[in-house]
Amino acid sequence: MKMGVKLWVIKASGQREPFDDQKLVKTLMRAGASKPFALTIVSKVKGRVYDGVRTKEILKMALSILRNDREVKNPAVAMKYSLKTAIMSLGPSGFPFEKFFAEVLNNYGYKTLVGKSYPGTEVMQEVDVSANDSSNKRFMVECKYHNQHGIYTDLKVAMYTHARFLDLKKFFDVSWLATNTKLTNDAIDYARGVGMRVTTWGFPKGESLQELIEKKGLYPITVISRVRGRIKDSLIDSGVVTIKQLVSFDLSRLSKDSGIPLRILDRLRKEASVLVKEGLS
Amino acid sequence: MKMGVKLWVIKASGQREPFDDQKLVKTLMRAGASKPFALTIVSKVKGRVYDGVRTKEILKMALSILRNDREVKNPAVAMKYSLKTAIMSLGPSGFPFEKFFAEVLNNYGYKTLVGKSYPGTEVMQEVDVSANDSSNKRFMVECKYHNQHGIYTDLKVAMYTHARFLDLKKFFDVSWLATNTKLTNDAIDYARGVGMRVTTWGFPKGESLQELIEKKGLYPITVISRVRGRIKDSLIDSGVVTIKQLVSFDLSRLSKDSGIPLRILDRLRKEASVLVKEGLS
Repeated sequence: MKMGVKLWVIKASGQREPFDDQKLVKTLMRAGASKPFALTIVSKVKGRVYDGVRTKEILKMALSILRNDREVKNPAVAMKYSLKTAIMSLGPSGFPFEKFFAEVLNNYGYKTLVGKSYPGTEVMQEVDVSANDSSNKRFMVECKYHNQHGIYTDLKVAMYTHARFLDLKKFFDVSWLATNTKLTNDAIDYARGVGMRVTTWGFPKGESLQELIEKKGLYPITVISRVRGRIKDSLIDSGVVTIKQLVSFDLSRLSKDSGIPLRILDRLRKEASVLVKEGLS
Repeated sequence: MKMGVKLWVIKASGQREPFDDQKLVKTLMRAGASKPFALTIVSKVKGRVYDGVRTKEILKMALSILRNDREVKNPAVAMKYSLKTAIMSLGPSGFPFEKFFAEVLNNYGYKTLVGKSYPGTEVMQEVDVSANDSSNKRFMVECKYHNQHGIYTDLKVAMYTHARFLDLKKFFDVSWLATNTKLTNDAIDYARGVGMRVTTWGFPKGESLQELIEKKGLYPITVISRVRGRIKDSLIDSGVVTIKQLVSFDLSRLSKDSGIPLRILDRLRKEASVLVKEGLS
């Protein structure tokens, strides 16, 4: 990369923006890297960046350095750095995300139920997550999950969430829309207008999904790259959606419940333990 | 086809049902065929039907007989028989369907506007069709278009339509959901509960989309099989969505507006005239 030449990168949404060292350093530090460590990785990535590169490609480069470079080998940071992608790997359906978000809420003092149905005026309405906080306020949470980067949750989703809330008014005090990506501006404005709570990947500041996860190290089991396919499904079916649960569960019992051999669970727990320690430090 | 052996057909939705001669006879008669004529076609189709055939395939067979068989050659009936498919060909986007449904309403005494935006409490809301009837009742019409058979419009669509209506209450008296396929039972029940008017391909009896079209011969331009691609787009851009319009428009002016050569328009009009006469007879 030549000095003084502005490089453009293309985001997942298709938007262009100038390449920004500092942004990447911050992202890496948020993922647990020390400043000197982050700077080392960024300097390595910069050597490979070209005009018109996709941000996804940059993340891949950083990840490959984190994973393979002997100098900076650090699996825990690598795993945490891929948090957003790990969430995308919970899918393809939205159900694991509902379970995951409920588990996040459990860690913040809510009592939750996943997928309960309630009688509306004319039809039964299924609620993704029913959550009560410590003061017994009742939240009707609609989870909108996308298994691809760059897809926005739009106004129509906010509108049908509101209509469902109106139909179930006697059971809930507040509606809440949670998504692993972003909301369109229209959807945010509409939600504000009707008093709907909103949680997206990066919003609201201080309580965004990313921050809720990182503050308490509530990483999804899919940060462990081997947790895919049948193993992933079996863990989720057995109620294990975060690595914190993987560390605390009784493994021989989990092995019986999930049908996953104990030696595999043991290996996964070892990886999880490293990350939980990092996350809580 | 052997006598006494039950043949199963597979519907667009994936559901199976026994093959039913009478149903096909009725469909053909509704499309304008006389009873003996319909029976002739059905007997020909029956010779080709096999177990597990898709209904789509059966329609194709009947259509190909209508189009090609010397005995029964009748382009008008063939064109009308493919009405449902013609509507599917208006897409891929939903915009031509909005224009088409507005034109249907115009023929029933409504005054319509397509795609107008209104200020909701927090955001601008675009309304597919704004329609006033003769008593000046104001309808907010949401059009839900599918360009494939067998897809249902679901509860979520009915819910966001209702939420949009609530947000635009000062501009409209009644909400109205119109679709070219079907609604799920939940969506129908919900619509009834909130007082939403509903029009689907086959519902409500007497005023279904199919009946609204057939009663006044309001066939979409796509019943003419050559009206596809650029020609279709140019006609729609020039405000021509039904064959009735194609017959009544000033062709040389339409040629200027649409950029379609006069000789092509002339040929299309000839086909359209045959069908309009059939439809009105």
